[in-house]
Amino acid sequence: MKEHKIHSGWKNSLHEVIYEADTPLGKFFDLVLVILIVLSVILVMLESVKEIDEHYHTVLLTLEWVVTIFFTLEYIARLISIKKPWKYVFSFYGIIDFVSTIPLYLSYILAGSQVLLAVRAFRLLRIFRILKLVKFMGEASQLKAALKASRAKIAVFIYVVLILSVIMGTIMYLIESDEAGFTSIPRSIYWTIVTLTTVGYGDIAPQTNIGQFLATIIMVLGYGIIAVPTGIVTVEFSRHKNGDKAKSVVHTNTQACPSCTAEGHRDDATNCYKCGELL
Amino acid sequence: MKEHKIHSGWKNSLHEVIYEADTPLGKFFDLVLVILIVLSVILVMLESVKEIDEHYHTVLLTLEWVVTIFFTLEYIARLISIKKPWKYVFSFYGIIDFVSTIPLYLSYILAGSQVLLAVRAFRLLRIFRILKLVKFMGEASQLKAALKASRAKIAVFIYVVLILSVIMGTIMYLIESDEAGFTSIPRSIYWTIVTLTTVGYGDIAPQTNIGQFLATIIMVLGYGIIAVPTGIVTVEFSRHKNGDKAKSVVHTNTQACPSCTAEGHRDDATNCYKCGELL
Amino acid sequence: MKEHKIHSGWKNSLHEVIYEADTPLGKFFDLVLVILIVLSVILVMLESVKEIDEHYHTVLLTLEWVVTIFFTLEYIARLISIKKPWKYVFSFYGIIDFVSTIPLYLSYILAGSQVLLAVRAFRLLRIFRILKLVKFMGEASQLKAALKASRAKIAVFIYVVLILSVIMGTIMYLIESDEAGFTSIPRSIYWTIVTLTTVGYGDIAPQTNIGQFLATIIMVLGYGIIAVPTGIVTVEFSRHKNGDKAKSVVHTNTQACPSCTAEGHRDDATNCYKCGELL
Amino acid sequence: MKEHKIHSGWKNSLHEVIYEADTPLGKFFDLVLVILIVLSVILVMLESVKEIDEHYHTVLLTLEWVVTIFFTLEYIARLISIKKPWKYVFSFYGIIDFVSTIPLYLSYILAGSQVLLAVRAFRLLRIFRILKLVKFMGEASQLKAALKASRAKIAVFIYVVLILSVIMGTIMYLIESDEAGFTSIPRSIYWTIVTLTTVGYGDIAPQTNIGQFLATIIMVLGYGIIAVPTGIVTVEFSRHKNGDKAKSVVHTNTQACPSCTAEGHRDDATNCYKCGELL
Repeated sequence: MKEHKIHSGWKNSLHEVIYEADTPLGKFFDLVLVILIVLSVILVMLESVKEIDEHYHTVLLTLEWVVTIFFTLEYIARLISIKKPWKYVFSFYGIIDFVSTIPLYLSYILAGSQVLLAVRAFRLLRIFRILKLVKFMGEASQLKAALKASRAKIAVFIYVVLILSVIMGTIMYLIESDEAGFTSIPRSIYWTIVTLTTVGYGDIAPQTNIGQFLATIIMVLGYGIIAVPTGIVTVEFSRHKNGDKAKSVVHTNTQACPSCTAEGHRDDATNCYKCGELL
Repeated sequence: MKEHKIHSGWKNSLHEVIYEADTPLGKFFDLVLVILIVLSVILVMLESVKEIDEHYHTVLLTLEWVVTIFFTLEYIARLISIKKPWKYVFSFYGIIDFVSTIPLYLSYILAGSQVLLAVRAFRLLRIFRILKLVKFMGEASQLKAALKASRAKIAVFIYVVLILSVIMGTIMYLIESDEAGFTSIPRSIYWTIVTLTTVGYGDIAPQTNIGQFLATIIMVLGYGIIAVPTGIVTVEFSRHKNGDKAKSVVHTNTQACPSCTAEGHRDDATNCYKCGELL
Repeated sequence: MKEHKIHSGWKNSLHEVIYEADTPLGKFFDLVLVILIVLSVILVMLESVKEIDEHYHTVLLTLEWVVTIFFTLEYIARLISIKKPWKYVFSFYGIIDFVSTIPLYLSYILAGSQVLLAVRAFRLLRIFRILKLVKFMGEASQLKAALKASRAKIAVFIYVVLILSVIMGTIMYLIESDEAGFTSIPRSIYWTIVTLTTVGYGDIAPQTNIGQFLATIIMVLGYGIIAVPTGIVTVEFSRHKNGDKAKSVVHTNTQACPSCTAEGHRDDATNCYKCGELL
Repeated sequence: MKEHKIHSGWKNSLHEVIYEADTPLGKFFDLVLVILIVLSVILVMLESVKEIDEHYHTVLLTLEWVVTIFFTLEYIARLISIKKPWKYVFSFYGIIDFVSTIPLYLSYILAGSQVLLAVRAFRLLRIFRILKLVKFMGEASQLKAALKASRAKIAVFIYVVLILSVIMGTIMYLIESDEAGFTSIPRSIYWTIVTLTTVGYGDIAPQTNIGQFLATIIMVLGYGIIAVPTGIVTVEFSRHKNGDKAKSVVHTNTQACPSCTAEGHRDDATNCYKCGELL
């Protein structure tokens, strides 16, 4: 980056502000971005509430323009300050940024394009990236590693749950009548998953005795098998917490070295690990 | 298998294709089978949706014939390529394969035989078997071992939950009136399980103050006792994860060898494991 | 017991049959008792279902008499074969046995005494005791020990949940109107517990925006704090499983002693722990 | 405290009774306070039940006066027996004590001030403080430490759940119509959280096929991700249970000492802990 300073100094400065967060200006840009992303999502929410949209339409539209213009400028700045603009354009965040920006412009051409505003919710994910700055990121990556390690087991678990749902749903469809809401097998499977996950809306509920008996079994099954993913994830967390094989656990004491005052010696240590002095 | 190659070579080839997956043809057969099983289950689902069945009846029936013919051929092939056909016929998968195949033929003789199509959902279990090829199987067997080890504890747990449900359900039946939906003891027990497993449909709900108070206790109980199976399974997973067969767990004591002072002898040790001195 | 054999041999025999299970007759008695307890509970259930009671009233009444007479004889036999009858009469099981037996007799004197039949559900607990014979009892006592050890922590947890429910319930009562079902503070607290435990009947549900926002917080809280009892119980299970401090875990291998063929030596063993022979 | 005994002996005695619990009078005061706090909360509850308030208005009002007068005296006593009264007045408990006391007085001046009575529920928290006396406090502090340690991970988890809710809620708003209850994005998000936490009221439920399909995914997600906080808290509990302060965990490597071949040195060790040789 440093070598190109002479011929494109302002592009580098822009890149530093937008993509990095080490300079005060970079941090300020990130802060403004986070605020505007949150604001833009709240705006989309408020516009969807009919009463609020009727009363404060002008205010909301003005704020929408402010957000849109900022997002437009940000998108252009991201394009010109990066070396491979196409890579950004077709990246996950590039597409989300683009779709989050255009709806207001499109609304003058196409009716119903406001629907695209919903994509803005995905911009919230960028906040997660910006938060890389803070210490939470370490915790997040630990969570991610544990979940990644238990991926295969969780896949097996979900597969078993889905097959169970299909089988149980089909049986319930045969047992229960249309009146109870079991109008088709897909709907019965929907009900089975509602029951198995202990959500239980109650919009569809078995009416016959045999149906209620089977429902009882599904409930107890669902209540019990939640233990499986929990067990998997807990064991993985435990492993990621306690360290990998190379880093084993030894017991240390609070004794300080008389020579160099280093602490945390092994219980069976006879010499200081820092200076070699006898303990 | 190799010895019978001469007099029944094609049977062996067929057996290899159908029952094994080492040859390219065997893998291809498994792939086609998985696709057709999934397709057949989706077909049964779509036929149960009235609107879809009305509009696309011919398409669905044609596809149903394709699936049925493939399943018929597969069933016959399985029969002739195996040495003990009867063993397959009366096996779990044999029965499911048979019942999954016949409904379409039966529908010309018997009305309502379409009901048997529901059995097809069980064929999805075969996919699980075919997936033996992939690495997920190891994970599945680990899950299975952990669940098997906690079987007795889970049985005790389910028994306690059921007794609790019967007692609580009977009490709720006495407290609540028919209007609230507690029309009989079995229905009250159904409601108790719905509540205890935190499903909570709301089709039956207590109306009286004392009933709601008791319901509260059942909920907190149900909310709390989920911890029990989770704890059991987690501990078992942890054991199956950490301990491989070669390194088994034995009980040791703090007795020191009189000769070499080595510690950590097995409880049943008579000699020191370091110097061989009698303990 | 053996010393009194001469002057009251038949009482001892009766005692052995009823209270013990070592003799074939004792085992047979236990089996009959279990069957009749289950039957008596099913009878009470069926009688509560109006349609069944109407059609099969005579059959049910006859069976009810069979059960009642057996229970009466059992109660008398228990009384005369024990040394301190009053201790049995006023014990937990003594009272349940008595109340389970009398309703049918009382029904000729008092109307509505059938309500006492509900107490029979508690007799199911005796099955648990009879099952002491089978291996499940060890598992049950392990479960019990783990739960007992986490008693204090669970009490703190439930206390926090209850205070949270009272505070949240009171706030929801102030926010939500009567129309949404929040007619009084106790009912609001009932709703809060329904929500916090993720049961969610839906008979009472917030209607205002602020109420729904607060409900959201209660849900996420309830969803999260389930982790606490689960964590407590899991850690306790893990401790009760892994043993106490004196018995520590060491790694052993499958190597057999060349001299005495003893197996399960420590990985770092140089001598056999049985005979002291060099490995 | 002891030095000021002469010139303000009665203030010290009062302080001891109110703020401490070592003397019999102090214990008695705490007991009376706990009873009156519980009574005052029950009073507020009962007053909110219309039928009870109509029938027992005089009794409730009398008891309300008893509680109010006690609370007034307690508040004054707390003020005069403490050295820095303002610190108490503006403390958490000071404000709650004040607001719990005044509603009855205010009700003669301001209509609707009874609403403030709801604040009394917070006084229940003081019971927690008084219970400091009993052994539960140790358990509570252990729970608190474990939760504090997993704070950052739980924050990341809740953040992910919230973003997921916003994204899913927005998508469901676009898919489902107003008739099903998805009238605005905030309401859709409310529904998503109701589903994700497996509460499932059923006041809002998807009607379209695609909506039900997406709902299914949300349910399975919600059912699965409960494993994450559970895993986090369990691992933390396990650490707080097993590890006392003296034996801390340090990372060691497999490097062997060049002089004495001892292994298991700390990652930051420069000298062997056995012989003191430079590593």
